[in-house]
Amino acid sequence: MRGGVFITIEGGEGAGKSTLISKLSEKIFQETKRSTLITREPGGVPIAESIRNVILDTKNTEMDGRTEALLYAAARRQHLVEVVMPGIDEGKIIVCDRFVDSSLAYQGYARGLGIDKVWEINRFATKDCMPHLTLYLDIDPEVGLSRIEANSHREVNRLDLESLAFHKKVREGYLEIVRRFPDRIRTLDASGSSEEIVDQAWEHVKKALDAQG
Amino acid sequence: MRGGVFITIEGGEGAGKSTLISKLSEKIFQETKRSTLITREPGGVPIAESIRNVILDTKNTEMDGRTEALLYAAARRQHLVEVVMPGIDEGKIIVCDRFVDSSLAYQGYARGLGIDKVWEINRFATKDCMPHLTLYLDIDPEVGLSRIEANSHREVNRLDLESLAFHKKVREGYLEIVRRFPDRIRTLDASGSSEEIVDQAWEHVKKALDAQG
Repeated sequence: MRGGVFITIEGGEGAGKSTLISKLSEKIFQETKRSTLITREPGGVPIAESIRNVILDTKNTEMDGRTEALLYAAARRQHLVEVVMPGIDEGKIIVCDRFVDSSLAYQGYARGLGIDKVWEINRFATKDCMPHLTLYLDIDPEVGLSRIEANSHREVNRLDLESLAFHKKVREGYLEIVRRFPDRIRTLDASGSSEEIVDQAWEHVKKALDAQG
Repeated sequence: MRGGVFITIEGGEGAGKSTLISKLSEKIFQETKRSTLITREPGGVPIAESIRNVILDTKNTEMDGRTEALLYAAARRQHLVEVVMPGIDEGKIIVCDRFVDSSLAYQGYARGLGIDKVWEINRFATKDCMPHLTLYLDIDPEVGLSRIEANSHREVNRLDLESLAFHKKVREGYLEIVRRFPDRIRTLDASGSSEEIVDQAWEHVKKALDAQG
């Protein structure tokens, strides 16, 4: 049986993750005749959905940042066990929209909990099941946010400056994470055309597929 | 202001935690005229209650052991932030029925996730807020379980053997944890009378109160 391949897609707001995922799965099918399983947490897994509801339901009291990070890790674990691991066992190509690195960049770095600390609990959550390949879509946050605003037909100058500062931190976090995991993560310049990006992405995916047989 | 003191009570089934907590708080009041805040997770904290509901609601799918451990750590964090930490800041004597060591003994050791691994996520959850004193009520699991059965008026010979093996592991886990945290944890022989036990407990509590001023 062909080995399953687990690929995650990361990036800030407006980096073009959804477009890449859609075009990349087409490309994979054209090139290999294999279909991809596209997923994202909580991925329709009831326990993970319930955990997500706790995170989103902020009535009554304020949630501590560490509580939230532990809940994300818990939902991640359950999605991994119920969706990703069986998919890998069945030899599937799995493309997951955001994974551990999102927690490291957003909560570990941008929210200040610390990349090392958030990595520790996520290492517990993932155990030995980390992606074979992570594609990080790198974009200047001003460009990313303006793309979102263009899409939603809002005025570009309504860009929230506090939000921009936060998204700049998210990018700094991602760049730090890329330095820490050079073997797993490949950076794609997300300012190019979607065709250029999917071609770059495919080169990395092809190698990952070859490596897993 | 007098410093707050955070005390946790640990032990297997039938060790007599509830009795000790009740008698110890009376003793503390007699001796110091200070009242104790008695709590246990999730402690009426809405976010922690919601997390507990996810743990207890096992409909649809089976919860992975690591998901469960992360959820316990998340509920612990929120209870700590909303109940224990403010109590310490206000100079209260807080007595908590079970805490980190229960996760280490039950999930880390008896369920086989590993004490080190479960300690790692609980260190994230507790940050720098660990108990000043932990009282571990040590009892032979056969004695502990037979006490519970006697209380519930069931026949003693209906003791479930598989359950007994599990509770023996829990005790082994606790004894290992006591070795790892010799400064924080004090072991009480829970086979004695409740008066003897509370007297032993008070000696340790007195020292902890003195140390915190």
